[in-house]
Amino acid sequence: MPRLVLVRHGQSAWNLENRFTGWWDVDLTPQGEAEAQAAGALLAAKGLDFDLCFTSLQTRAIRTLHIALRAMGRLWLPEEKDWRLNERHYGGLTGLNKAETAARHGDEQVKIWRRSFDIPPPPLPPGSEYDLARDRRYAGIEVPATESLKDTIARVLPYWDTRIAPALKSGERVLISAHGNSLRALVKHLSRIPDDEITSLEIPTGQPIVYELDDDLNAIERYYLKDR
Amino acid sequence: MPRLVLVRHGQSAWNLENRFTGWWDVDLTPQGEAEAQAAGALLAAKGLDFDLCFTSLQTRAIRTLHIALRAMGRLWLPEEKDWRLNERHYGGLTGLNKAETAARHGDEQVKIWRRSFDIPPPPLPPGSEYDLARDRRYAGIEVPATESLKDTIARVLPYWDTRIAPALKSGERVLISAHGNSLRALVKHLSRIPDDEITSLEIPTGQPIVYELDDDLNAIERYYLKDR
Repeated sequence: MPRLVLVRHGQSAWNLENRFTGWWDVDLTPQGEAEAQAAGALLAAKGLDFDLCFTSLQTRAIRTLHIALRAMGRLWLPEEKDWRLNERHYGGLTGLNKAETAARHGDEQVKIWRRSFDIPPPPLPPGSEYDLARDRRYAGIEVPATESLKDTIARVLPYWDTRIAPALKSGERVLISAHGNSLRALVKHLSRIPDDEITSLEIPTGQPIVYELDDDLNAIERYYLKDR
Repeated sequence: MPRLVLVRHGQSAWNLENRFTGWWDVDLTPQGEAEAQAAGALLAAKGLDFDLCFTSLQTRAIRTLHIALRAMGRLWLPEEKDWRLNERHYGGLTGLNKAETAARHGDEQVKIWRRSFDIPPPPLPPGSEYDLARDRRYAGIEVPATESLKDTIARVLPYWDTRIAPALKSGERVLISAHGNSLRALVKHLSRIPDDEITSLEIPTGQPIVYELDDDLNAIERYYLKDR
């Protein structure tokens, strides 16, 4: 039966500073590296193995994958990187810390942006230092100016359908290293979580989440590997 | 015009101990990691950029690629790993250091195995601790028991022809992180080096070698990036 494991990247420099990161390419902290290492060691200790890995185009998720694979002796596995697994784009909030955001927009408004399903933050102003429209890695892609969780799901699921689901159906064991909101998109889809509940589902960093699936990729069980 | 860059992995633990490594999966030393980092920094400083990366199924080459790409801010580039870029298989010499090999086989014989084009070392005995025939990464591949440089070339070139050359011809800038002998295979092919000269051509670790090619992938120029 198909098995899928999801890992959210370890702590990044901006997680630590409580700044909205989104598509901005922030690297792991030493603690984030240790979390990735521990995730790989746990996967190896529990005897989980893989045939194919997916990750985003963002350094913190790619490095989490590489560090975990190294801990498993599996750096040689094929990996596919795609922007569709990127974190939600936080628009004009990118780079702001929680205090700056609250001072500028008010606590209530920030809570709405963080927790609503379909209300995006204000767009990133063109020419912002955080504008990635001209970043080579996104050549040929329309870089969003902002995204709601709904927007994020709308670009994650086509990738699931065209690349990840077919691999699982063909018998490949899949590991995905990605981000809080791109993983929420997958968990919402697989566990059929309603719109108004998914935004409060927390995905902890560096904790492998295992999905046991049936042949049609319906979720039979979802659990944290550390609990087994 | 197509451009290709070759990098031999940085120092591995067995390079340091002077042991024949071949297909055995030995990791980089801290110095090897520093060489990879310096290679990436040099590529970035010289303004070289890439669209596609190739490497072997061996940790030391994969990590050299990852460390260099990280130094370039290019971890997001697509990468393809293939056993055909692996190091030459040293057969029954695997794991022996120079002194042990000389004591067992004599200096002259060792020189022949190291420096002849088509004489392979004795095969790895079945059941040897270094036998990789049952390693998952080589499932579906007939793991050689030993290889001459000629044997190595015979499996590297089909991969060049089917995967690397087409990418270069389609305009992609290619970076290859591999091993002394799989890179000798490519250099011999591109620079048309005779059989009796290629075995003495040294490929230094962590030094990017640049090929400027014409549209038919004939070599116009080959140089060490550090010299420009």
